[in-house]
Amino acid sequence: MELFEKQVSSKQIFDGKVVKLFVDQVELPDGSLAIREIVRHPGAVCVVPVDNDGNVVMIRQFRYPFGKVLLEIPAGKLEPNEDPLEAVKRELEEESGAVAGRIEHIGELYTTVAIFDEKIQIYLATDLTFVNAHPDQGEFLEVERIPLDTLVQMVMDGEIQDAKTQIAILKAHRILEGRR
Amino acid sequence: MELFEKQVSSKQIFDGKVVKLFVDQVELPDGSLAIREIVRHPGAVCVVPVDNDGNVVMIRQFRYPFGKVLLEIPAGKLEPNEDPLEAVKRELEEESGAVAGRIEHIGELYTTVAIFDEKIQIYLATDLTFVNAHPDQGEFLEVERIPLDTLVQMVMDGEIQDAKTQIAILKAHRILEGRR
Repeated sequence: MELFEKQVSSKQIFDGKVVKLFVDQVELPDGSLAIREIVRHPGAVCVVPVDNDGNVVMIRQFRYPFGKVLLEIPAGKLEPNEDPLEAVKRELEEESGAVAGRIEHIGELYTTVAIFDEKIQIYLATDLTFVNAHPDQGEFLEVERIPLDTLVQMVMDGEIQDAKTQIAILKAHRILEGRR
Repeated sequence: MELFEKQVSSKQIFDGKVVKLFVDQVELPDGSLAIREIVRHPGAVCVVPVDNDGNVVMIRQFRYPFGKVLLEIPAGKLEPNEDPLEAVKRELEEESGAVAGRIEHIGELYTTVAIFDEKIQIYLATDLTFVNAHPDQGEFLEVERIPLDTLVQMVMDGEIQDAKTQIAILKAHRILEGRR
């Protein structure tokens, strides 16, 4: 079956600090027309930093859309033309004060496939040493080390809501289990 | 540390068919002001339908923001005031033609915590029987049954990008492994 949707027109509604919003008209496979509301985003990186005792360096941060503090792995959006690996190193040190001897790309995720074009690259960081964290101005967060096994159980019990954190924790656990 | 951000003002930029966009001003914990671009969404459900042979009923669908066909579990957004369990039954039958004897809630995910308030409820459906699929008008998709173990490997190998699908497959696999 032909599934492709062809762009007929595109109108930019909003050009923000973080997101751009477009309303596009598309032609569906049967020739009929439909509207697509698209939010565009520069992309992001996230990282599971695991210390030599099997603890993950986690971040607690207020998330305004939900009005509450969430537990997440370190992450950040890409600056224009920034190399994702450099972004990981920057966010890791800024948010958690960790410097990694080894960083591996372990996956990619699309957050909201129907309307949002954000892609997040997922990394695993090991062989950690610690310096002082220095969050960006206007960034308020708490750092906490939690055993990876505990985090897997928290994901399974529904105690971690953030999508990138659920995926990265479950993937990192399977990868590190396979190396034992 | 106090992490709360207080709303100072909120301006609606766009009121669409699927999303609403707001630009809010907030007061940070140190008293300074910041801008938050917020996309609001009615919420959604997704489901891992596993047949008696251990195959998952999967969907291939063109996703306009990425310009390509993605492999996903069945899912759909909530209608106003719709019960999530009813939405799961509806989407499951519409998209895949499956009717489940047993449906369990196995988790929740927040897709993009910094800017998007979408929550997706995750379900596991078993004891399946099949009728004819009947997608919504304007919805074009292909249905394919793939073994759950194969899908886990595809998630680990980076062959499935959709966030809800990665989480739901890894969680469903751990849950069903625990029952063997």
